[in-house]
Amino acid sequence: MSLIVDRRNIDFLLYEFLEVEKLFETERYGAHDRAGVTAMLDSAEAIAEKHFQPIAAKLDANEPKAVDGKVEIIPGVKEALEAFAEAGFFATVFDEADGGLQLPMSVHLLAAGIFQVANQPIANYAFLTIGNANMLRAFGTEEQIARYMPPMLEGRWFGTMCLSEPQAGSSLSDITCKAEPLGDGTYRLSGSKMWISGGDHELSENIVHMVLAKIPGGPAGVKGISLFLVPKIRVNEDGSLGGSNHIGLGGLNHKMGQRGTTNCLLNFSDGGDTIGTLVGAEGQGLACMFHMMNEARLGVGHTAVMAGLGGYLFSLNYARERLQGRHPQDKNPVSPQVPIIQHADIRRMLLAQKAAVEGAMALTAYCAHLTDLEKVEADADKRANLHLLLEILTPVAKSWPSEHCLEANKWAIQILGGYGYTRDFPVERYYRDNRLNHIHEGTYGIQALDLLGRKVRMKDGAALKVLLGEVTVTAKAAACTELAEEAKALQAAIGALGAALQAVGAASDANRGLANATLFLNSFGHVVIAWLWLRQALIAQKALEGKKDEGSETIFYRGKLGACRYFFRYELPKVHAELALVASLDTTCLEFASEDFGAL
Amino acid sequence: MSLIVDRRNIDFLLYEFLEVEKLFETERYGAHDRAGVTAMLDSAEAIAEKHFQPIAAKLDANEPKAVDGKVEIIPGVKEALEAFAEAGFFATVFDEADGGLQLPMSVHLLAAGIFQVANQPIANYAFLTIGNANMLRAFGTEEQIARYMPPMLEGRWFGTMCLSEPQAGSSLSDITCKAEPLGDGTYRLSGSKMWISGGDHELSENIVHMVLAKIPGGPAGVKGISLFLVPKIRVNEDGSLGGSNHIGLGGLNHKMGQRGTTNCLLNFSDGGDTIGTLVGAEGQGLACMFHMMNEARLGVGHTAVMAGLGGYLFSLNYARERLQGRHPQDKNPVSPQVPIIQHADIRRMLLAQKAAVEGAMALTAYCAHLTDLEKVEADADKRANLHLLLEILTPVAKSWPSEHCLEANKWAIQILGGYGYTRDFPVERYYRDNRLNHIHEGTYGIQALDLLGRKVRMKDGAALKVLLGEVTVTAKAAACTELAEEAKALQAAIGALGAALQAVGAASDANRGLANATLFLNSFGHVVIAWLWLRQALIAQKALEGKKDEGSETIFYRGKLGACRYFFRYELPKVHAELALVASLDTTCLEFASEDFGAL
Repeated sequence: MSLIVDRRNIDFLLYEFLEVEKLFETERYGAHDRAGVTAMLDSAEAIAEKHFQPIAAKLDANEPKAVDGKVEIIPGVKEALEAFAEAGFFATVFDEADGGLQLPMSVHLLAAGIFQVANQPIANYAFLTIGNANMLRAFGTEEQIARYMPPMLEGRWFGTMCLSEPQAGSSLSDITCKAEPLGDGTYRLSGSKMWISGGDHELSENIVHMVLAKIPGGPAGVKGISLFLVPKIRVNEDGSLGGSNHIGLGGLNHKMGQRGTTNCLLNFSDGGDTIGTLVGAEGQGLACMFHMMNEARLGVGHTAVMAGLGGYLFSLNYARERLQGRHPQDKNPVSPQVPIIQHADIRRMLLAQKAAVEGAMALTAYCAHLTDLEKVEADADKRANLHLLLEILTPVAKSWPSEHCLEANKWAIQILGGYGYTRDFPVERYYRDNRLNHIHEGTYGIQALDLLGRKVRMKDGAALKVLLGEVTVTAKAAACTELAEEAKALQAAIGALGAALQAVGAASDANRGLANATLFLNSFGHVVIAWLWLRQALIAQKALEGKKDEGSETIFYRGKLGACRYFFRYELPKVHAELALVASLDTTCLEFASEDFGAL
Repeated sequence: MSLIVDRRNIDFLLYEFLEVEKLFETERYGAHDRAGVTAMLDSAEAIAEKHFQPIAAKLDANEPKAVDGKVEIIPGVKEALEAFAEAGFFATVFDEADGGLQLPMSVHLLAAGIFQVANQPIANYAFLTIGNANMLRAFGTEEQIARYMPPMLEGRWFGTMCLSEPQAGSSLSDITCKAEPLGDGTYRLSGSKMWISGGDHELSENIVHMVLAKIPGGPAGVKGISLFLVPKIRVNEDGSLGGSNHIGLGGLNHKMGQRGTTNCLLNFSDGGDTIGTLVGAEGQGLACMFHMMNEARLGVGHTAVMAGLGGYLFSLNYARERLQGRHPQDKNPVSPQVPIIQHADIRRMLLAQKAAVEGAMALTAYCAHLTDLEKVEADADKRANLHLLLEILTPVAKSWPSEHCLEANKWAIQILGGYGYTRDFPVERYYRDNRLNHIHEGTYGIQALDLLGRKVRMKDGAALKVLLGEVTVTAKAAACTELAEEAKALQAAIGALGAALQAVGAASDANRGLANATLFLNSFGHVVIAWLWLRQALIAQKALEGKKDEGSETIFYRGKLGACRYFFRYELPKVHAELALVASLDTTCLEFASEDFGAL
């Protein structure tokens, strides 16, 4: 079996769950068909297996080093990215008019995942570049786009997002990076940016930074933040490279995971001027960023899912091969040992992974599909609803996988026993890689405030209403089938969600109402994943109707039904205690005084 | 504040929670008093701060290397262990007659914890040696004890336990290491042992391995396993060192955590004979090991607690100092940022850590105290009950911290944000170190089978009865106080536990009854920790009676009450969904066929 992709599941998601072939009937996506997508996935798998996977452990053990202000990376990384570029993967989601393939985002996301499982740190360079180019396309001037975008789509120049500073991570309104207008339409950037993934390296000919900074004299807080395009090497009018733009490498951060992606402290105007140009309007920096944030957060969520998938596939394969122990009722010491997959607790840990990973993958694929549908939906009301769905699901797509696919990675290690925590096997690496996703691109707590403080209320709860409408359709469809028990459980969970929301809405002050927002996010996520499992199970149930053989298709659908059952029996019931706590507006944490933690 | 110990909490556990001063009134422990214990804790703290803590990050980044069959370790490790030895810490728990201090195990455990938080990998060498000497004392011949034990108590020779083999970790009955009698009372050992912590190094003059092996011609399975004392360097009759005992270093395992402790593959009779002597009777190897297993498992549990404590103390200190963001209702962008400890969600993550760490620490200290009480209890029935309590609590003490203090470490990272996952701060290291405890010395799943398959049933449920008796005493004491709500919740949880046990007992076959044993263990652990929190809260409640000042003592006890409240509101309610699942004898995992996982 492949240890980096489950192609059958990708096909299930694309053609049975999302029905993307309907997209291929639209004008926008009419150039694509299933055969073409299959060929592209084949190509992704081949490149990932040949160039990405083989150096994953080595790159982890030999992280990039800063030597004389330059970054050294092990051989193979550049070649992998060149192979990725050569196959055209930098350009897949861009419009044909921009030199892209105009591929649906859902297809792109699932193809990208193959590279991510194979070698996340290398994939980061590519997907950061794609995100960067995407933002430039949305907000750049014609001139900026013409000069900077084509080399990114060719994979010759890479891109980054520069938001955080040493003193301002979650609290972006407190950034202090300065952009002083020079009078000729350009700006001089000064200050430092922290946690910049791909911030410096020699892998590409140039690096295009998208930088949040404040123009002196502007308003305080987020309204004073503007967005700037700041290249590592200056670019002449004809697109050729000029001199250094004086961005100093202040240092590399050494993380516990995703170690092969450089993560930098960058100092602007270091030994000379750093010159940038404004992207979008003055004071609209955060608005531009947030326009792209849904996709960036979806990307992080999918990264978490892919780490989970890597651990799941590896531990599944291991559990089928590793012999250890006997069944509880077998007391004969010389009977042969059994493959550990035969132990109920190993199966539990595999099912926990399958339920988390395939559940979360359905969510990230669904969100990506929403962005595709938005682009082809002609009806304005329907289009608005698609956007609302995406808005309310984004904090979940970012957060739920970062928590529950990390938990999945924990079980992958557990299945391998002592081998699991050695660096000879990839499962501990997936676990370390995944731990970052809980924090970057907006922490779990920040997503929770976004969901409970903003998304569930916006437009009088319109987004929530659209989502619950979708969930109810699924529950009703399941109610008169063998999935009736699950349908009932889903509706009970929605009732608990509603009760919690009502209590929060009636809270006397914002602090109290939001004090347990993280728990709400977690349970909300469980309900969403349960819904998507029920949707998958309905498809599987239908596909199994009348099937009598024991072929791989029967097995595949039976696996979907089993994982759905697992999620509804082992996971969904947890929401009731958690939502009851949210509904109680408990103030244990809110009112616990700082000094009461003691140890002063 | 200290980042490696909370001395006030140690005093609370020793003098208020366990009331160890009562032990000091017994003959066995009469030489000790509070002042002496305080001096010893002072000494532990000073040595840990001076020699252990400063090289923790460096040792993690520079793990031991095998060079020409020998192990190289960074400077400072040997010196730290020498300082530990010089202060007498190798000998504290041994009887005075053996050259020890005859210190209660509870005091020893809490003092040991200071070294563990400071630098777990170094502490491992010491505590493995103490465990080894302890086993030798229990089962060795007079001659073996006289020859091998004194150098271990002086810290000149170290010790290991050699159980696992590459093909036999959880399934010890399948070991294949051979011990052939040579006719002169000695045995020739052959075969390999895997995962041997401290298995080879140059830190001590000699290494004493306790090895499980099979004597050819003996019975199959566990009955054929015997225990052997096998030194790295042969020892002459007068105790002086002889020649090599031909134990080859097959390789070092490279783990994700506790990296400074060598972990070895050892090959016996490598280029010459490896000679050992029998410890205990033939075929009694596993019985000897299991005699010491309670303490070894308690040790691993305490290790997990200490990793949790390290993360908690560091993130607490950080949260008090780090400024970031404002309260939800504060919309003024220029108002000063607040210390992050003022955010409700940060407090939740700190309380989650405090509740897990101090709850689990109460459990490990309590278990250690049971071994002390056993030694001084004159009444045979009471002594038997103490032992039953220890038996049933050991799988919990091993497992619960390895799961929930690992979770605590996850929150410590989260509190530090992006900084949390860099190797500049210790919280990610504690997380990695802790991940091992879930597996070694018997996995979570193995502990679950021990608890549900054996401990709750043994002697017609006698151990469970004793434990529930103790829990009921606490619940009743709390029922008529301000902790009545908690008392009620504890009793409801015990009801759910009973219902689950009844269903499991009525299960038609062992496989089905034990299929969800791990979930049972988890909830059982929650009930035990809730009980110990209630005990702590009762003490705090009493101490606060009439207290009107806002001094550090008031704050300390208020913190205990708050953490107890947190555990009862945020954690204990989770058991109901989990125990209902156990009671339902759900077979989702048991019956899920291996092939249904797909991805073949």
